[in-house]
Amino acid sequence: MILCKVIGSVWATRKDEALTGVKLMIVRRLNDSGTKGAEEFVAADFVGAGVGEKVIVATGSAARNACLDKEVPIDATIVGIVDAVELQDN
Amino acid sequence: MILCKVIGSVWATRKDEALTGVKLMIVRRLNDSGTKGAEEFVAADFVGAGVGEKVIVATGSAARNACLDKEVPIDATIVGIVDAVELQDN
Amino acid sequence: MILCKVIGSVWATRKDEALTGVKLMIVRRLNDSGTKGAEEFVAADFVGAGVGEKVIVATGSAARNACLDKEVPIDATIVGIVDAVELQDN
Amino acid sequence: MILCKVIGSVWATRKDEALTGVKLMIVRRLNDSGTKGAEEFVAADFVGAGVGEKVIVATGSAARNACLDKEVPIDATIVGIVDAVELQDN
Amino acid sequence: MILCKVIGSVWATRKDEALTGVKLMIVRRLNDSGTKGAEEFVAADFVGAGVGEKVIVATGSAARNACLDKEVPIDATIVGIVDAVELQDN
Repeated sequence: MILCKVIGSVWATRKDEALTGVKLMIVRRLNDSGTKGAEEFVAADFVGAGVGEKVIVATGSAARNACLDKEVPIDATIVGIVDAVELQDN
Repeated sequence: MILCKVIGSVWATRKDEALTGVKLMIVRRLNDSGTKGAEEFVAADFVGAGVGEKVIVATGSAARNACLDKEVPIDATIVGIVDAVELQDN
Repeated sequence: MILCKVIGSVWATRKDEALTGVKLMIVRRLNDSGTKGAEEFVAADFVGAGVGEKVIVATGSAARNACLDKEVPIDATIVGIVDAVELQDN
Repeated sequence: MILCKVIGSVWATRKDEALTGVKLMIVRRLNDSGTKGAEEFVAADFVGAGVGEKVIVATGSAARNACLDKEVPIDATIVGIVDAVELQDN
Repeated sequence: MILCKVIGSVWATRKDEALTGVKLMIVRRLNDSGTKGAEEFVAADFVGAGVGEKVIVATGSAARNACLDKEVPIDATIVGIVDAVELQDN
């Protein structure tokens, strides 16, 4: 999983039917210091994450394990909202 | 999922049978400002996306969940046509 | 899927039994202008692609959907031979 | 699988239910000399790895084979704690 | 699949039970000229590859198709030992 910050959302009227009602957020990968990374992508949200929050994102087939409907065409899902990150990097 | 712009299409007569009738588009990954990114690849299209449109692309095994036939050799599918992107990146 | 050029082949006598008889080609990822990209890898070929041809390669679990035997240890397969690429990138 | 060093942990109260009780560590990819690499991500831990330890991390669908519950939204798992790495790179 | 050179091995006593008895090698991705690439990772070996040998490595879910036990947490497997690579890159 990767640490990301939610930076926005995306809207699509014409889409795969299985995506109806799914909240699609734009997330940006964070590096360990919590500063901006380079990578941005779209992740489904089922935990109620808001813009600006730091989140844990699962990718690939794992992303669908967080969906009620396993047949959705989703490859990235927000699976947790970060309370704290403890780093001890010596 | 990733945000892309449809920039073209690709034609192949000799191909895996399961790809018969599947529209294969060339898409380019967008960065958050909607400007050109560096990454281009081929995505199947089942939502009727046109060249020039901004789309949401699902990759990996998720891509096949957007296909009627789950046994197709497809690893990227256009799953939505973007109406709007809202970014609030502070 | 990604656009590649077939640039060679690889031979292995000692290998996983499921790969017996499978033609393994070396392919190089193309960028949109059809010029050389940086990425090279090995892809199975079931459509009869020749060295020098431009092809469509499916990767990941999708690659096995192009194989008769779904239990092969194959993560990249040539699924089409490109006739034409139309690009309209404004 | 990739060699990583455990550099910290992440806490999330609001999360996917299947992640309850799962220890989520932050790991950093190592290069062959055991020095710091650039890539950091979150991996589930079921082998009791501690911060500072060098570990083997499985990614993608393989990560869930190390979980009792295969339906967890987990895409990276610590599957071993490294005793020794022998390199003979000529 | 990717071409790699076996450059070492890794030992772990505390590990996922399914990895007991599995030989874990460190491999380095080769570029087309057979010279050193930048990428190194851990791959399971069931074909008896030795350090210094050039091998074909399958990644992702494909890697487990080369394992007797499909439930192992393995995402990369050596599936062949290279006899020859023929390149015709014009």
